[in-house]
Amino acid sequence: MSTVTLTTDFGEGSSYVAAMKGALLAVNPAARLLDLSHRIPPQDLAAVAIFLLDALPWFPPGSIHVVVVDPGVGTDRALLCVEWNEQVILAPDNGCWTSVVGPADTPRVFRLAERRYWSANVSTTFHGRDILAPVAGHLSLGVRPRQLGPPVSDWIRLALPQPSVNGARIRGEVMFVDTFGNLVTNIRSESLELVSQVRIGGHMVSRLVRTYCDAEPGTLVALIGSTGRLEVAVVNGSAADRLGLGVGTPIELDRNG
Amino acid sequence: MSTVTLTTDFGEGSSYVAAMKGALLAVNPAARLLDLSHRIPPQDLAAVAIFLLDALPWFPPGSIHVVVVDPGVGTDRALLCVEWNEQVILAPDNGCWTSVVGPADTPRVFRLAERRYWSANVSTTFHGRDILAPVAGHLSLGVRPRQLGPPVSDWIRLALPQPSVNGARIRGEVMFVDTFGNLVTNIRSESLELVSQVRIGGHMVSRLVRTYCDAEPGTLVALIGSTGRLEVAVVNGSAADRLGLGVGTPIELDRNG
Amino acid sequence: MSTVTLTTDFGEGSSYVAAMKGALLAVNPAARLLDLSHRIPPQDLAAVAIFLLDALPWFPPGSIHVVVVDPGVGTDRALLCVEWNEQVILAPDNGCWTSVVGPADTPRVFRLAERRYWSANVSTTFHGRDILAPVAGHLSLGVRPRQLGPPVSDWIRLALPQPSVNGARIRGEVMFVDTFGNLVTNIRSESLELVSQVRIGGHMVSRLVRTYCDAEPGTLVALIGSTGRLEVAVVNGSAADRLGLGVGTPIELDRNG
Repeated sequence: MSTVTLTTDFGEGSSYVAAMKGALLAVNPAARLLDLSHRIPPQDLAAVAIFLLDALPWFPPGSIHVVVVDPGVGTDRALLCVEWNEQVILAPDNGCWTSVVGPADTPRVFRLAERRYWSANVSTTFHGRDILAPVAGHLSLGVRPRQLGPPVSDWIRLALPQPSVNGARIRGEVMFVDTFGNLVTNIRSESLELVSQVRIGGHMVSRLVRTYCDAEPGTLVALIGSTGRLEVAVVNGSAADRLGLGVGTPIELDRNG
Repeated sequence: MSTVTLTTDFGEGSSYVAAMKGALLAVNPAARLLDLSHRIPPQDLAAVAIFLLDALPWFPPGSIHVVVVDPGVGTDRALLCVEWNEQVILAPDNGCWTSVVGPADTPRVFRLAERRYWSANVSTTFHGRDILAPVAGHLSLGVRPRQLGPPVSDWIRLALPQPSVNGARIRGEVMFVDTFGNLVTNIRSESLELVSQVRIGGHMVSRLVRTYCDAEPGTLVALIGSTGRLEVAVVNGSAADRLGLGVGTPIELDRNG
Repeated sequence: MSTVTLTTDFGEGSSYVAAMKGALLAVNPAARLLDLSHRIPPQDLAAVAIFLLDALPWFPPGSIHVVVVDPGVGTDRALLCVEWNEQVILAPDNGCWTSVVGPADTPRVFRLAERRYWSANVSTTFHGRDILAPVAGHLSLGVRPRQLGPPVSDWIRLALPQPSVNGARIRGEVMFVDTFGNLVTNIRSESLELVSQVRIGGHMVSRLVRTYCDAEPGTLVALIGSTGRLEVAVVNGSAADRLGLGVGTPIELDRNG
């Protein structure tokens, strides 16, 4: 039995999430549901894109992911079913899911069109409940993505901010702030061995470490975090609070050699 | 196997919720648990009533819903097991669940009395953990509601604020504010076709739309939302923040013809 | 099939929690996951210790609990697998779990060392995802704790603040504040029958009650709460807000006779 995960911007404890769970179980009462996040900032496509990028690659084949961050609900934007790495993603065609697709991946994408897999009544404002949830229920019962509608070869791609390289200097930005106040950037790196300097929001980060505990509590440090990206942290503290910085703050890194 | 849902006012991540989950699994280790909400405002019966009204009708037959918003815990208020639409609700007798009962529904209600289905030790302040959770565990194992205690024919009914109609004018109020800042009212309607004006908290809402995207970002709009009720929204923004309004704000609607 | 519970300080909706769920399901796609809390205050070992103390004893034999509050990640602190009361706890060796061990309990503790049960790549900053989650997956598939690494006879013990007794006077402190604003202390008692006075933060609490509803709304009361500990509450209100008090506030109790 597949696990069906839910990711939305509805907020924890929202009746909208509860209604989606009910609509999904109404199709497959034995479906195994798993909350991923309901705290995506409202309608923030970049935030959900980064969330999915950091979460979905860890899931096993057969997982079904329902993603409802849908500022275009009620317009003619399509709803998609994506086969990717033996997993399935259901999401609006707004680019929120394309972050997970690596250069070597070849997703197969279908546009939801077969209304037999939808709720009988479809509202104009809540396709998560009326279309995506029942479709996920059917997928968990064995319906195949290609049964849901025609294949499509084009879809919205969301371009996340990419770092720029200028000689020995790399410029990036903060992509998200975690609950510890760590400032996680979009600069990927294997290590900081060749880095001489990190600057963020007017602050110099002089301690480059391997893990949070490699410096005294309270020290401002830079490290390669668990997502493989450069992050700025305060040991046993919050870099976001200390520096007063958040998503979008530019960061610069100078490499030696 | 039935799904058992949990709705409380304990707050996300509360050890009270965790203890309830443990007490339930202690009766049926294979129970399938599903969080609905733990963010009902503390002891707010109207809020949980609206939550259940918007969530429970979507669930399939056989679902078991545990509801713990219980300002009267420790008094002689009864605990109830309600059979409704082939679903089962466990809740204190404080009216929190009666919102889901439609005019044609005939719920069968039992008062929890059979202590063999309760924890051996029952505290005076946490019947969710000591009575409702183990009872839900037994129900998920096949115990029938009528085994839990005697049928009752009377119970507390919670009257949610109803809109009033005066000629062509309907007066209602905001029932909840969702995570997007949409102001969801208690005025039900199929459409806004015959509506000429909507006024809320001293503001005129002149754009009546079918879905959020039928107006430019930033526009204040009124529409029939996914719960079938009139709501006031700001396209890609928050009506609650823009207007500084919240639960209880009166709203007026004038109909043509 | 065992239930695997998750308790972290990552925050609700964190992609770190989602990645852990994925890494666990990648080992056992049929694992039954249950969120306990992701709102432990960041790196707060006392808070997670109290949380586990109030939650874990309610769970049935066979439960597997993954606890990730890990300020020492990346150092040489050990990761432990604890057999306790026929349940299993996976946690860093920082004392966070020792609160659950009663004087008569004899936990068997193993140090995680067998890398075959870990992810192929282990980051320096996220052992919850790279070690604990896959190990929990293997445990849920039937791997035994003793297969995970060598037994250990010593581990970090976290001493929670204990009340002091001086004649008829007991001094304790507030351990946590629940969502209702109740101030829950570390003073255990069967009843308040012999108590003559309770003082907290300069306030005298004169009403000693059996349950919240034994006094008028708005009354400041003291009672033995559902965890068996003295707590200070405001009937239908918030003692924390009313008194402006929180975790760590001293409380004094005088007994008669």
